Amino acid sequence: MMPRYRMTVEYDGIPYVGWQRQNNGPSVQGAIERAILSLTGETASVRGAGRTDSGVHAVGQVTHADLSKEWKPHTLRNALNAHLRLAGDRVAILNVMEVDASFDARFSAIRRHYLYRIIVRRAPLALEAGRAWWVAKDMDHEVMHTAAQTLVGRHDFTTFRSVHCQANSPVRTLDRLDVTRSGELIEIRATAQSFLHNQIRSFAGTLKLAGEGKWTPDDVRTALEARDRKACGPVAPPDGLYFMQVDYRDDAGSAPPIPDDESDDS
Amino acid sequence: MMPRYRMTVEYDGIPYVGWQRQNNGPSVQGAIERAILSLTGETASVRGAGRTDSGVHAVGQVTHADLSKEWKPHTLRNALNAHLRLAGDRVAILNVMEVDASFDARFSAIRRHYLYRIIVRRAPLALEAGRAWWVAKDMDHEVMHTAAQTLVGRHDFTTFRSVHCQANSPVRTLDRLDVTRSGELIEIRATAQSFLHNQIRSFAGTLKLAGEGKWTPDDVRTALEARDRKACGPVAPPDGLYFMQVDYRDDAGSAPPIPDDESDDS
Repeated sequence: MMPRYRMTVEYDGIPYVGWQRQNNGPSVQGAIERAILSLTGETASVRGAGRTDSGVHAVGQVTHADLSKEWKPHTLRNALNAHLRLAGDRVAILNVMEVDASFDARFSAIRRHYLYRIIVRRAPLALEAGRAWWVAKDMDHEVMHTAAQTLVGRHDFTTFRSVHCQANSPVRTLDRLDVTRSGELIEIRATAQSFLHNQIRSFAGTLKLAGEGKWTPDDVRTALEARDRKACGPVAPPDGLYFMQVDYRDDAGSAPPIPDDESDDS
Repeated sequence: MMPRYRMTVEYDGIPYVGWQRQNNGPSVQGAIERAILSLTGETASVRGAGRTDSGVHAVGQVTHADLSKEWKPHTLRNALNAHLRLAGDRVAILNVMEVDASFDARFSAIRRHYLYRIIVRRAPLALEAGRAWWVAKDMDHEVMHTAAQTLVGRHDFTTFRSVHCQANSPVRTLDRLDVTRSGELIEIRATAQSFLHNQIRSFAGTLKLAGEGKWTPDDVRTALEARDRKACGPVAPPDGLYFMQVDYRDDAGSAPPIPDDESDDS
């Protein structure tokens, strides 16, 4: 039996086509697999807890890999980071744990946490370019928060998923969608067992309409109830989206919720 | 009399050779002067409150320019930002004010505020690469803060200035050097009327020795009292340094302190 290693991963989404290996450019998954290959000579396939899109960042993506050799977790972390740095990748392995073969980074996840950052100011972003959504006109974050509460709970989120979403069901249970503000920075925090493709960016773009006063919170509810992709506001850019954390049953020590669906494609 | 405009500037220091125009690459000053030229057809020379080095960032650099035409401040800001974006610059004009001809971004400054960010963790930086100093071994920020207090006040800072520093005098009055911590992030906040070349990076590198337990706070005092560049710890990289804010007498409504020297070269 090959030992299985669970890894927490941080990355800058800008130089990548996304988490998943694709033919049109470098992926985060590909970067990690290449680091494993150059370290161990093994061709491992790593699965992520969330398949983030191009330009989406992570500070707490989780993946796992089976390796033939036993590694001390911190030695494996340091060696993989050395190979990632050597390759010029903007990917870092924050933490490595040896886990049971029943652990699966994607299918064992019981809760995923995302953050969407918006900077509201007249000047374009210099330091935060690519790391937040720049909105030039002021917004009312309290109206955004009120509107967000209409989305919390178990719903058919057809309105808020990409037409390319491959999940079997558009039904998800949104545990939390909070909007807070600190100066120029508006933060949207979303938690669910799993999300549909583009769901959080669809939320962010729609909540912006509420924050600008173009939509009321009731309009957001109406959009949800339409179960129609065309009822969604404009999808927000990937720049502001961060995959923050994944919870697993063994970490929380609590029973898992009733599963919606096993996939996650934010 | 040409109207004078004071501008607050944010930039990502990574792609630039520094604030000041140089022959070996793009500068922030050059980017702003080029934006003014393409907007107005005028060759203006902009002077900054601080001549930041390559890789040093700013969220509150201040500069001024004399233009022949009267502009509404927000129109000038928006137009310059449009030209900066078009040129692909990582520079944004946050604010423009029309000021009296007696205002000089550099010589009228009564206080400058800098931040130095250190991230202490085992994994290299992915998202914050180039935006903080990565230190792999843990440090005691309370010892760093204690050591920092030996540097506060009016001193001959020869130990902590670059051999290339062009200021007439090595004497400066350091108003504040605070070290705080939040999780992995250690922040050093420095305030003075003006700083010597590489002064804050010299402080950061020396305080790291204290944080690691290699130096005691008394060793830091001894280094200061040596008035010898060779007594300084290794100079910290530019990545973690941010020029945060400049105070002017008219903003504060208070009398200026007794001037040390008119220059600033962090």
